[in-house]
Amino acid sequence: METFATLLELIGTIAFAASGALIAMKKRMDLLGVIILGVITAVGGGILRDLILGITPPLAFRDPLCAVVAIATSVLLFIPWLRHRLMHNQRLFDVVLLIMDSIGLGVFTVMGIWNALTFTVHHSAFLLIFVGVLTGVGGGVIRDVLAGNMPFILVKYVYACASLIGAFACALLRKLLPLYAAMLFGMLLVLIIRLLAAHYHWNLPHADDVE
Amino acid sequence: METFATLLELIGTIAFAASGALIAMKKRMDLLGVIILGVITAVGGGILRDLILGITPPLAFRDPLCAVVAIATSVLLFIPWLRHRLMHNQRLFDVVLLIMDSIGLGVFTVMGIWNALTFTVHHSAFLLIFVGVLTGVGGGVIRDVLAGNMPFILVKYVYACASLIGAFACALLRKLLPLYAAMLFGMLLVLIIRLLAAHYHWNLPHADDVE
Amino acid sequence: METFATLLELIGTIAFAASGALIAMKKRMDLLGVIILGVITAVGGGILRDLILGITPPLAFRDPLCAVVAIATSVLLFIPWLRHRLMHNQRLFDVVLLIMDSIGLGVFTVMGIWNALTFTVHHSAFLLIFVGVLTGVGGGVIRDVLAGNMPFILVKYVYACASLIGAFACALLRKLLPLYAAMLFGMLLVLIIRLLAAHYHWNLPHADDVE
Repeated sequence: METFATLLELIGTIAFAASGALIAMKKRMDLLGVIILGVITAVGGGILRDLILGITPPLAFRDPLCAVVAIATSVLLFIPWLRHRLMHNQRLFDVVLLIMDSIGLGVFTVMGIWNALTFTVHHSAFLLIFVGVLTGVGGGVIRDVLAGNMPFILVKYVYACASLIGAFACALLRKLLPLYAAMLFGMLLVLIIRLLAAHYHWNLPHADDVE
Repeated sequence: METFATLLELIGTIAFAASGALIAMKKRMDLLGVIILGVITAVGGGILRDLILGITPPLAFRDPLCAVVAIATSVLLFIPWLRHRLMHNQRLFDVVLLIMDSIGLGVFTVMGIWNALTFTVHHSAFLLIFVGVLTGVGGGVIRDVLAGNMPFILVKYVYACASLIGAFACALLRKLLPLYAAMLFGMLLVLIIRLLAAHYHWNLPHADDVE
Repeated sequence: METFATLLELIGTIAFAASGALIAMKKRMDLLGVIILGVITAVGGGILRDLILGITPPLAFRDPLCAVVAIATSVLLFIPWLRHRLMHNQRLFDVVLLIMDSIGLGVFTVMGIWNALTFTVHHSAFLLIFVGVLTGVGGGVIRDVLAGNMPFILVKYVYACASLIGAFACALLRKLLPLYAAMLFGMLLVLIIRLLAAHYHWNLPHADDVE
């Protein structure tokens, strides 16, 4: 189970680091800015989660693995050949960003629940879901605020809803299924909802729909 | 006293949730964005306060009441009839936003002091006042940063000053009066100063006044 | 050693408070906004550091000294004669801001390491360096986000790199030298790298260099 969690964490770290690096490149930052936004996006949600759960110092400060993987991911995306391709093909850029951000959202949502279960004692379903959503969306919110963008969570089709539904499913199913299965299911649910929503432009009523 | 604190917390939650929802509507976010900004504004200051005081997980993660009330408030404001009225009458919008934000500021300032007194042991007057102001302004700062606005705390007439004076009064008076009376007095002081300042455009010297 | 740390902390507080006050004046905030941004910049990094290290309530909440010094610094810079000079001489403004921000960066980087060593038990080199960099850059990031600017850390020449190198040097040298000497060396290294980088416009490849 430990190994499974570490593996998931690494997948989420790579995905979120890539999303941060892509947005930094779009903002024409230099290599260092790209690495920093990649690392902050990858570890930000987890640090927030650990502070909330009272895990100090946060896990990201104890083990350099995630930071190193996030740096490597950001540097990789900065390789001229790859960067050139991504920067000059808006559609490719958007698709890669969407997929990376969605994987990160899904992975960190269920990892939030896993950490709440592992490191704390009194975990209600509400706490698990709240911590899951916060961990899932946290890294992306920090990324968007630092990059000067309106956070995805406030403007993207069903962004937080996808995380909420996945967290809900994971928190419920863990009573029926082995934990790793509930986590995988919750993660895939987030990913599928988010991709479908982006593809079909699922939308909720806007404040100006009355006009 | 518990009941009194819960009641105050609910009033503050409704007021701050409304301020977040209003600003989200102004930014033309969809229903989900409005709910999320409402909830974050309502619970953000309290979460920050609990992290500062070492209360983990923060109270907002233990009891869904505040989150549910904040969601309900945001949804209510999104009802077409009400939303239409608020979105097409700038003056009404400004007045409602001012009142909601001021109530939230007042309530959370004294609730910060209450939590510091209840959950920690070594509380100097400085700690009480600092925590009170931080709790009072925290939710609004998070709201403004996420919405891409310059925080009220940095630009609105005497915003932080109102919270500071209220916190100071509450921290002093609790030695002379019952705690609930000191809290009510501090809260009203914040509200009155803020409303008077907004009405009379109380102002401090600006950096460009030398020109 | 306590005295040495307090002295460093005060120097860093003055420097960062000045950087926050300067940026607030540039944004044409009023006196209160200038004081608030000064104080938040000066204590922000340290509060973040203490939350990460599990020191609650953070040191800034226990002792008003830093807050008082930060307020005094901000008020001082607001004196019409001084303010006039700084606001009407862009080059002087830039140089003072650069120096203040660099001193703050250097001091808080090594103070982060000092606090991690003093208040926690299990400190790997990675933890020390990570906490040092986060403490160093934290106040400035909060300042820039609140002021609506793109954070220095993402766009300025080798900003985070300077902090990283200084933290690395300090964490290594403390095994060879007395701690205060390692801290002084790390601090000066940050300052020198940052000033040289700004003077010679040291630069890393940008995302648009492929075009």
